[in-house]
Amino acid sequence: MTRVNQAGSPWRSGRSRHRDRGLKREAVVRTAAQAFNARGYHNTSLDDVAAALGVTKPTVYYYVANKEQLLFECFCAGLEPIRTAVREALAAEGPARARLMRVVSDYAAAIASDYGWCMVRAVDHDLGAETAQHVRALKSEIDQGIRQLIRDGITDGSIQHCDPKVASFAIAGALNWIAHWYRDGQPMSAPQVAEAFVGLFDGAMAPRS
Amino acid sequence: MTRVNQAGSPWRSGRSRHRDRGLKREAVVRTAAQAFNARGYHNTSLDDVAAALGVTKPTVYYYVANKEQLLFECFCAGLEPIRTAVREALAAEGPARARLMRVVSDYAAAIASDYGWCMVRAVDHDLGAETAQHVRALKSEIDQGIRQLIRDGITDGSIQHCDPKVASFAIAGALNWIAHWYRDGQPMSAPQVAEAFVGLFDGAMAPRS
Repeated sequence: MTRVNQAGSPWRSGRSRHRDRGLKREAVVRTAAQAFNARGYHNTSLDDVAAALGVTKPTVYYYVANKEQLLFECFCAGLEPIRTAVREALAAEGPARARLMRVVSDYAAAIASDYGWCMVRAVDHDLGAETAQHVRALKSEIDQGIRQLIRDGITDGSIQHCDPKVASFAIAGALNWIAHWYRDGQPMSAPQVAEAFVGLFDGAMAPRS
Repeated sequence: MTRVNQAGSPWRSGRSRHRDRGLKREAVVRTAAQAFNARGYHNTSLDDVAAALGVTKPTVYYYVANKEQLLFECFCAGLEPIRTAVREALAAEGPARARLMRVVSDYAAAIASDYGWCMVRAVDHDLGAETAQHVRALKSEIDQGIRQLIRDGITDGSIQHCDPKVASFAIAGALNWIAHWYRDGQPMSAPQVAEAFVGLFDGAMAPRS
């Protein structure tokens, strides 16, 4: 998680005119995530996000309708690599435990990223009913994917027998909790956190010989 | 987690005159925890808590100074059995994995209790700086105790080699996350949740044979 700054703003770059809308939108979302993380959702205004990007508030409104949508976009930006990892793991070949560990790695990295705080700590309280339902559906998709990988691993012999639902909740809980203790400047980098959790779960889920 | 109701209020009981201050205080704290859990901290007033107990607001003020103190008391009420479990596990004899599993059981039961929501989901946002620091110290005591049990288990051969810090965070995260998914009326009772997590962690932490 990096501090809020203007250095990465596509509007500040000499090449900004050539950047596409997608890149600028991504910069708005990432800057908002950093600001929400640093100051809290309620203490951050769209003015703050605009100032951090060095643009005007109307420019921010060009990319998102309101602050709630911005929080939802932060959630989605963090969740997208996990969704991709789950889909790829379900479609791939090989022992399910190894496929699950690739999900664990990407999941841990996502929670230790700029978006982790928004995904875990902000998102519950601050979304309207409809958006909250959308968030629940996206989380459920990941939960169901992890359960399937665990069932597959029990079947193929790469994962020791366990309750897939409880194990999926335990894995998600352990990983989501990274957002509560992980801070920039810690002895562990985000990739090291991911590696540590993969090592832990891989050993924990391997079948007894 | 049970619904807010007046049935358990010591003031409603015919024997209420003989109950001591401690019991009434406990009823105030438990009723507040149920109300915070049901409606959210910000949406619950001390009037609501008083009404649920069938007493007046001044009666509630006789036991707690303000709503923040009430939330802190809810946190402490949930944490106390975990602190006791950690202290007893550290002082007991026998393989450390079995001692750790008694902590896991009491920890899971606490998070699936009336106090779980306050302990995990409410407490972060809604406490003043001084109280928040007290909360962090209490949480750290438990974290350090769990790390010590893990180190002891690696030494006595009952726990497979792992990073005690990451493993402690993973265990706490998995257990704290129960507050996000566990609801009354689920297929699993609170003791079943505790049993399921003990089974999962016991199998996961046992050394490779």
